[in-house]
Amino acid sequence: MPSATPLYDVRGRGFARRAPVTEAWAWIDDRIVPPPARSLPLVECAGLRLAEAVMALGDWPPADRAAVDGYAVAAADTLGAGSYNPVPLTAAVAVTAGDPLPPGCDAVVPFEAAQAVGPFVEAIDAVAPGSGVERQAAWTRAGSQLLPAGRRLRPGDLGLLAAAGWGAGYGAGYGMVPVLPAPRVRILLAGGPKAGAPEQLGAMLAALVGRDGGAVEAVEDRTADLDALAEAFAQPGADLILSAGRTGTGPDDVAPVALAQAGSLDLHGIAMRPGGSAGLGLAGGVPVLLLPGEPMAALAAYELLAGRAVRRAAGLPAGLPHAATEVVTARKLVSEIGSVDLHRVRLDDDGRVEPAASPVWPGLAAAARADGFVLIPAESEGVPDGVPVTMYGFA
Amino acid sequence: MPSATPLYDVRGRGFARRAPVTEAWAWIDDRIVPPPARSLPLVECAGLRLAEAVMALGDWPPADRAAVDGYAVAAADTLGAGSYNPVPLTAAVAVTAGDPLPPGCDAVVPFEAAQAVGPFVEAIDAVAPGSGVERQAAWTRAGSQLLPAGRRLRPGDLGLLAAAGWGAGYGAGYGMVPVLPAPRVRILLAGGPKAGAPEQLGAMLAALVGRDGGAVEAVEDRTADLDALAEAFAQPGADLILSAGRTGTGPDDVAPVALAQAGSLDLHGIAMRPGGSAGLGLAGGVPVLLLPGEPMAALAAYELLAGRAVRRAAGLPAGLPHAATEVVTARKLVSEIGSVDLHRVRLDDDGRVEPAASPVWPGLAAAARADGFVLIPAESEGVPDGVPVTMYGFA
Repeated sequence: MPSATPLYDVRGRGFARRAPVTEAWAWIDDRIVPPPARSLPLVECAGLRLAEAVMALGDWPPADRAAVDGYAVAAADTLGAGSYNPVPLTAAVAVTAGDPLPPGCDAVVPFEAAQAVGPFVEAIDAVAPGSGVERQAAWTRAGSQLLPAGRRLRPGDLGLLAAAGWGAGYGAGYGMVPVLPAPRVRILLAGGPKAGAPEQLGAMLAALVGRDGGAVEAVEDRTADLDALAEAFAQPGADLILSAGRTGTGPDDVAPVALAQAGSLDLHGIAMRPGGSAGLGLAGGVPVLLLPGEPMAALAAYELLAGRAVRRAAGLPAGLPHAATEVVTARKLVSEIGSVDLHRVRLDDDGRVEPAASPVWPGLAAAARADGFVLIPAESEGVPDGVPVTMYGFA
Repeated sequence: MPSATPLYDVRGRGFARRAPVTEAWAWIDDRIVPPPARSLPLVECAGLRLAEAVMALGDWPPADRAAVDGYAVAAADTLGAGSYNPVPLTAAVAVTAGDPLPPGCDAVVPFEAAQAVGPFVEAIDAVAPGSGVERQAAWTRAGSQLLPAGRRLRPGDLGLLAAAGWGAGYGAGYGMVPVLPAPRVRILLAGGPKAGAPEQLGAMLAALVGRDGGAVEAVEDRTADLDALAEAFAQPGADLILSAGRTGTGPDDVAPVALAQAGSLDLHGIAMRPGGSAGLGLAGGVPVLLLPGEPMAALAAYELLAGRAVRRAAGLPAGLPHAATEVVTARKLVSEIGSVDLHRVRLDDDGRVEPAASPVWPGLAAAARADGFVLIPAESEGVPDGVPVTMYGFA
């Protein structure tokens, strides 16, 4: 396939320019939209976003019913009952929670408040009318909103929808929930022998994609083969493609060339540290993010670029999903004008942050002790000590 | 199989006693331990807990090497180079990041700081010795600790292990990480027609088990069949079993009887609202948690009891995983002495909490607006307004 855009080939030449991170974000925000809404069974909906508000299908409960296990009675028949004054319940009907109330009954005496004496039943506690009874629509009324459009479904929401009758039989299609399906994300590894083995970068990226609401379509190892990579970019079936490795300026850094061959390389070289050799473009209309192969750089480029693409494709808020806390620097964070620097930081005993590792040379053991990261904007040379910054917590 | 414990059968009688939540926690903590440590490929380790500290397998990098793509040089040869004073690099060798430094070289001129003139290369910027070079062990030294024992592996940790050479070839078994494997959790549904359809409760419970570090072994619908349920309790293959439904005092509440038949019913009836019909016991040595079938009660019993069991079985901290924040009550939270009440609460515009739903009658639409929950201890009648409480946030 011919290249759709002129390619500035950085191999052996270096980057002529690195695009601001904001330009990459604008590219992502302009081109990536959630897949169309679908109706899926509740069991597939955990973590997905509601495409529209979910309304109660009917009154719940659909009619007055027993709320507890016990004996359905007319409350008046229990008047004066107590443990020293058992009152015979001649008209009592044993019910379990959810049973309709028999005619003439307005309360349920729980088994604990009754005793069986041979074939007869006595109340040992009085109940008021309505006690032990769930009124029709006590939980929710037909047509009322249960969950708003855009809600990311929590485990408890699934139980709530079950409780509201989604799945309890309201006719055809019951239990199908209108959601934005998880985008199918293809992960292509072009690491080769010098970086970590491909499946290792795949482990990290798959975990990150899952965190951000994507479904991993495939993890494929294409090593540094230009044509194999171009073919994998062009293959249909994914909503979004991430590649890792081979984005730099060496002769075998074929990922940008492969993307240009499969479609278009729209940006290559982003003004960020680490991860500055990242790129992005389109292949067959599908957005492709090129991440560096060095794992710490790949992580930074994922967090700053690819994660945003995955979240937008999932219909989730585009911003960083990490818990953001305002903290004060205990030491200077040095940065470079012209690039967004991702500083791994750790909290000291006073709850202030100090650098855990340099953006450029992370030092692995140090990076492992990081509690989160701080982003230093491109226009800043760094942050002195004693200054408030936002820390994005790792989790 | 004969019952191992005398069964107090609550069917048609009611609960004689409900055990304090702390007694249930002690039962869980005494009997549930993580499965033995295993070595698993990195790609299967996301979210698992390290069984032991991970040490660096070797120096990383294993020798001095190029840190950037460019020309390996003796730094002294670039002295005085600038864009108006190109200096010919007669001994330059093109390298890519990760290549070993050729003999006699002590720096790498990035391609951006060089220009090709026909077959020759000129430096247009001077470099200092060590520039563009990663020294042996700059990232980590053989035998140093990368990650501590007990660490729950984050996505970035997987990249870090990849960067440290786990998977890059240190001999047999490379890339295998010592972890506590996810406990296999069987989910048995005994809902029947009145509760939500079984697969719906399964959706909620599977999502919760995943959140707490468990792997769902199977979700099986055994409806209200006593023998089928007892058989599913006794079936080997799970580290932990959760059942949902049929725990109450009605004639078809067979789950406790089935557990007694398959092993032992150690507690039935827990002093908590909602979810007070929960129970626990053992079947073939495997802990079994009985959760109510009403979804909101099942959720509460999961959060207060089963989640703790799953987390302990995964080697994770037993406490609630929800983000805990200290908030002040905007309104009274009414509770019942003798039971732990789980109050769903929402934050008002002033950041104070008000009840979103009663523990007993949640009111679904209201519950959906809850931001989290507050636990009122058994010895408390409730909390007046203006009092600090801990909110556990839903997510």
